[in-house]
Amino acid sequence: MQLITYRFPGHGAGSHAGVIDGDAVLNAGQLLERQRPLDMLRLLDLGSEGLDRLRVAVGRFRETHRNAIMLPEEVAAPRWLVEIEAPLPRPRSFRDFYAYEAHVAAGYRKRDRPVPAYWYEAPVFFYQYPGTFVGPDAIVPYPAGSEQLDFELEVAAVIGLRGRDIAVEHAWRHVAGLTILNDWSARDIQAREMSVGLGPAKGKDFATSIGPSLVTLDELADVLIDDRHRLAATVMVNDEVLAETNAGDLHWSLPQMIAVASRQVELEPGDVIGFGTMARGCLLELGESVHPWLQPGDEVVLTVDRLGRLRNRIGD
Amino acid sequence: MQLITYRFPGHGAGSHAGVIDGDAVLNAGQLLERQRPLDMLRLLDLGSEGLDRLRVAVGRFRETHRNAIMLPEEVAAPRWLVEIEAPLPRPRSFRDFYAYEAHVAAGYRKRDRPVPAYWYEAPVFFYQYPGTFVGPDAIVPYPAGSEQLDFELEVAAVIGLRGRDIAVEHAWRHVAGLTILNDWSARDIQAREMSVGLGPAKGKDFATSIGPSLVTLDELADVLIDDRHRLAATVMVNDEVLAETNAGDLHWSLPQMIAVASRQVELEPGDVIGFGTMARGCLLELGESVHPWLQPGDEVVLTVDRLGRLRNRIGD
Repeated sequence: MQLITYRFPGHGAGSHAGVIDGDAVLNAGQLLERQRPLDMLRLLDLGSEGLDRLRVAVGRFRETHRNAIMLPEEVAAPRWLVEIEAPLPRPRSFRDFYAYEAHVAAGYRKRDRPVPAYWYEAPVFFYQYPGTFVGPDAIVPYPAGSEQLDFELEVAAVIGLRGRDIAVEHAWRHVAGLTILNDWSARDIQAREMSVGLGPAKGKDFATSIGPSLVTLDELADVLIDDRHRLAATVMVNDEVLAETNAGDLHWSLPQMIAVASRQVELEPGDVIGFGTMARGCLLELGESVHPWLQPGDEVVLTVDRLGRLRNRIGD
Repeated sequence: MQLITYRFPGHGAGSHAGVIDGDAVLNAGQLLERQRPLDMLRLLDLGSEGLDRLRVAVGRFRETHRNAIMLPEEVAAPRWLVEIEAPLPRPRSFRDFYAYEAHVAAGYRKRDRPVPAYWYEAPVFFYQYPGTFVGPDAIVPYPAGSEQLDFELEVAAVIGLRGRDIAVEHAWRHVAGLTILNDWSARDIQAREMSVGLGPAKGKDFATSIGPSLVTLDELADVLIDDRHRLAATVMVNDEVLAETNAGDLHWSLPQMIAVASRQVELEPGDVIGFGTMARGCLLELGESVHPWLQPGDEVVLTVDRLGRLRNRIGD
């Protein structure tokens, strides 16, 4: 399923969890016969059993309305009429890993340093702020005090099942699905604060984009090779393709990341785990000869096979 | 007021926000005549107006029951009978600054490096995980894979009023109060992951202690000098005083931290802002000649004037 968060006054106030079905968006709460509106966090809190029931309900709805000219409007909305938000407008937490060797090596090469030995010993991540997520087509605020705005092409997983000290071999069952993530970065601010040693904070907390949908794992089974999803990915800025890469070129797999993240810590439905920037997935790596830093008005489109396209424009 | 989070079956299931009143704990929800149980996040969501109403209600309750032998048991519980938890069992977010020059300088001296120039240009912080907070007298789990467990003596502020791009001169009105914070750290894990450059994550996410109470700012007005609260602080391990210091020796003030934290980001009631480790406030700085790394069974007591004492024991 392609799960989205959307607004549509005909389905009630606020944000709703929905399922993309061709040209329609189906209301997840109505399909599951919930009394109260269902947002994505509440849907994920129902666990894999909830997603299974939703899958069955979507199938039954399709079957029932196969030859219908009109769909029941309390359940279905025309896709072009709904406002699509970030699939998770406010994740419970956001961990960002650093798992693509080519990207990591390029970063250290710039500073004339080898990749630190520990990078090869365990997946490393840092906590980011989950309170400034935006969705597809949202305007990204230009970071105050920066002159070096960059994008970062990532895939992220969303946790769907609570767990702690999760073993690598059991990790996939804790994953609801995957989405595209753009970890916008103010490189000058980030470099200054990283000089102090605590990692990035203000260099990245002004915005993070995800979407357009949360694609559940069952849709991606055929591209899973050696615990990595082989999905071609591209970056376009103002309609020019800047980079082509693949989400599957991970040194550390998602199950390995989950094992580390959950050590002595309970992962919860709605936690977001970014895999890190893909090879050639940011201007810092591509260099100014490929494209200068982003400016207000620029449009950045990240495309990942099966996951869709995540488009944002830079604001003032 | 000294605000706490407590459990007491006589006041209903779950955690309640309360006020310490001598030997009694007063139920904040009852005092405010709320229909539903009130936890600390919901109390903070009522804003400074809510805290003002609570202060008036506590005064009125004291006045009414001044000569009473028995207090109404739906409002008051004997302090020794309630189970006190972290004042905020699950903060909305946790930013940890690095604002004590003596501690920062000692850390860099160890590595034969000067304090980075940027440290003097702006307050720097990193995001920590808010999902493993524990309260006074809780057992702190020994971090798996570590042989170098350390404490960190900090004071933290709790945000009480929503705001974004907050000016230094308006910052105090966004603060509900202060509490003691112990930022437990596995130094070996932390050093390994910091070698990669993203800051600490697994070295610190296994536990954070706060408490015993959230002391509202009005109780601390007389020790506020130059935007810093002059509060003497000590660390004891197994009843031995290891360090004496002062929470007011901040290079960067809390209003300055809040201005940075809120730049392009909305601070919310229930956000926790740690000031950083005080001078001599951890074993990493004190050195092995003062005390070896912590072991299972060790008891650590942090004391800060006016804020009380935060005691924890190390588990297995």
